[in-house]
Amino acid sequence: MQVTSEQRLDGGAFERAFTLGEIPGFLWTPGSASASAPSPLVLLGHPGGLHTMYPRLAARARRCVAQGFAAATIELPGSGERPRLASAEQARADLRRAIQAGQPVGDDIVDRLILPLVDKAVPEWRVTVDALLSLPEIGGPVGYAGGVIAIGVRLAVVEPRIAAAVLFAGSFVPRATFEEAQQVTIPLLVLLQWDDEGNDRQSALELFDAFGSKEKTLHANMGGHTGVPQFEGDDGDRFFVRHLR
Amino acid sequence: MQVTSEQRLDGGAFERAFTLGEIPGFLWTPGSASASAPSPLVLLGHPGGLHTMYPRLAARARRCVAQGFAAATIELPGSGERPRLASAEQARADLRRAIQAGQPVGDDIVDRLILPLVDKAVPEWRVTVDALLSLPEIGGPVGYAGGVIAIGVRLAVVEPRIAAAVLFAGSFVPRATFEEAQQVTIPLLVLLQWDDEGNDRQSALELFDAFGSKEKTLHANMGGHTGVPQFEGDDGDRFFVRHLR
Repeated sequence: MQVTSEQRLDGGAFERAFTLGEIPGFLWTPGSASASAPSPLVLLGHPGGLHTMYPRLAARARRCVAQGFAAATIELPGSGERPRLASAEQARADLRRAIQAGQPVGDDIVDRLILPLVDKAVPEWRVTVDALLSLPEIGGPVGYAGGVIAIGVRLAVVEPRIAAAVLFAGSFVPRATFEEAQQVTIPLLVLLQWDDEGNDRQSALELFDAFGSKEKTLHANMGGHTGVPQFEGDDGDRFFVRHLR
Repeated sequence: MQVTSEQRLDGGAFERAFTLGEIPGFLWTPGSASASAPSPLVLLGHPGGLHTMYPRLAARARRCVAQGFAAATIELPGSGERPRLASAEQARADLRRAIQAGQPVGDDIVDRLILPLVDKAVPEWRVTVDALLSLPEIGGPVGYAGGVIAIGVRLAVVEPRIAAAVLFAGSFVPRATFEEAQQVTIPLLVLLQWDDEGNDRQSALELFDAFGSKEKTLHANMGGHTGVPQFEGDDGDRFFVRHLR
């Protein structure tokens, strides 16, 4: 892990931009001076495009840091300045065509769009966790917060260091993810934007039902994709405080 | 309104048992000594049977009082020591027969069970609000928290002093309630126990969808009817703090 730049943000969070091999990412910590014990870590998931997503990710990171957590994110495979994934690009073109033609988006397109991304992103997240937990200022447990939900589900199944997750319900969930969801046992908070046009509500409710976790909570609100109310952000903070401290 | 007994509870809430005509009820306030400005009021709804429900109602009332709110509840028509409602008793017997015979509970039974109760309970709640708001230590705005959801919906539609409501999703919702729900415009927090056997989940989701409110939130959790997690109770408190203060 190579730190490429660092800065102290307003409010005290210490931000490091890094690369891990070819993968760019960010790490935010409460700051080496103030950290007495190693901080739990929250991984911030997103739909790809670190540059575009930076303001929202940094805002979420500051909230994590305010709770005494470290937060980190990495670029998704095929997004931002990373080389495109040929298979996903083809699926994305097919998706666009289907939507423009007013046709339903078939499971086949969803699988080709999402599954290669999950297969590639999850090992990258795990290597990132290895690297971050090797830093003295970061300890376990680890939480995952955000989309892509299929990535969050796979991580929750295969990565035992993930102790709790806040998942943002979104569309384009492969059928395989519904089956993997049954194997998830960690506490979950699932956020659903009830009236999000880009979101298949029924599919989100089915996925919530499928999760094997004994402790799972669904919080649904009005408004579009980026309209999650402030009070639900606060609730996500409290969820991690309950499960990562 | 006639106070029949009063006591100071552990934690400082001041409890008054009262009767309003033939209707018994309870009022909890932060206590006359400490109250500087009139307190907002939270009406605590319940499925009937004040005596049985008292421990849970008193616990919820203490939380309201801790936020600086007054809380009050009254016995439902036909419950506890109040005279039975003949129509509802007949419907209840039909309901029991249908369930024992493994038959679906028809809309007709639900209507006969719930609608007369709503028609009678809602004016009683309104008279109670009149009486309580005439006390110097209680001011507006007023919130409603609890079941029976059809009563909460009707109150939210007809009683302009109700500014926000926390509704507990339950079964046996008359079709008319779905239509009334469209006229509700106040902020809502709907609590749904996802795996409650006594609860028709699909119907609860439809009702949530039907509400006309621009600000409505659904919080779903695992566990049975009385298993609402502590953190959702905390969220209900914060909801009222946002909307009643």
